[in-house]
Amino acid sequence: MTDDVAVDFGENGLVPAVAQDADTGEVLMLAYVSPEALERTRETGVAHYYSRSRDELWQKGKTSGHTQAVEEVRVDCDADTLLYLVDQEGGACHTGHRSCFYRTIDGEHVGEKVFDPNAVYDD
Amino acid sequence: MTDDVAVDFGENGLVPAVAQDADTGEVLMLAYVSPEALERTRETGVAHYYSRSRDELWQKGKTSGHTQAVEEVRVDCDADTLLYLVDQEGGACHTGHRSCFYRTIDGEHVGEKVFDPNAVYDD
Repeated sequence: MTDDVAVDFGENGLVPAVAQDADTGEVLMLAYVSPEALERTRETGVAHYYSRSRDELWQKGKTSGHTQAVEEVRVDCDADTLLYLVDQEGGACHTGHRSCFYRTIDGEHVGEKVFDPNAVYDD
Repeated sequence: MTDDVAVDFGENGLVPAVAQDADTGEVLMLAYVSPEALERTRETGVAHYYSRSRDELWQKGKTSGHTQAVEEVRVDCDADTLLYLVDQEGGACHTGHRSCFYRTIDGEHVGEKVFDPNAVYDD
């Protein structure tokens, strides 16, 4: 018998969540999660986040079809960061890459492009 | 020839950085990075972060010896999150676990304990 870990959403009510490919271990993206986004993720098994720029709950892949089925949610030692272990449909990045971390800081391109963003997003 | 990616440190001057084991792909921790912490990381090849609670630059493992040799720094699409690919000495977590993400949100213990924190930290 285990009890849910109480997540510390802090002052702004959001925690960062790292999405990692459950099979390959590739780190796909980082986004922010509100209490409601976490609740929806756990209820539906599909990754939800909170968009700070649009100020709204957001289901990953709702427009593009590039959804994330969440196999497990982990919490870090301070309970202020989440790790989503996911089965990623298509690519996680709006640029068409599998992972948002497709560049080194030196500007070297290291990531795999898996779709054409112009064919997926309207504008 | 490539150019450095200009990191967007935003309003508070910090970006989150995910540390990932360069060999196994395990996500070890998330911490925050200031421009100076990033500079020191790149200069020394050892992971530096910025402690929001202590309000200071911080070399990971300076006290415990559990340093992170940084093999590569990656930047995400929006240039506001970093990924450190590291060779982790000992464990990343102050609780003695290899990774800070040693629990599921249901409270299940899934992480590996690799050292005794009482033997490493003074208090």
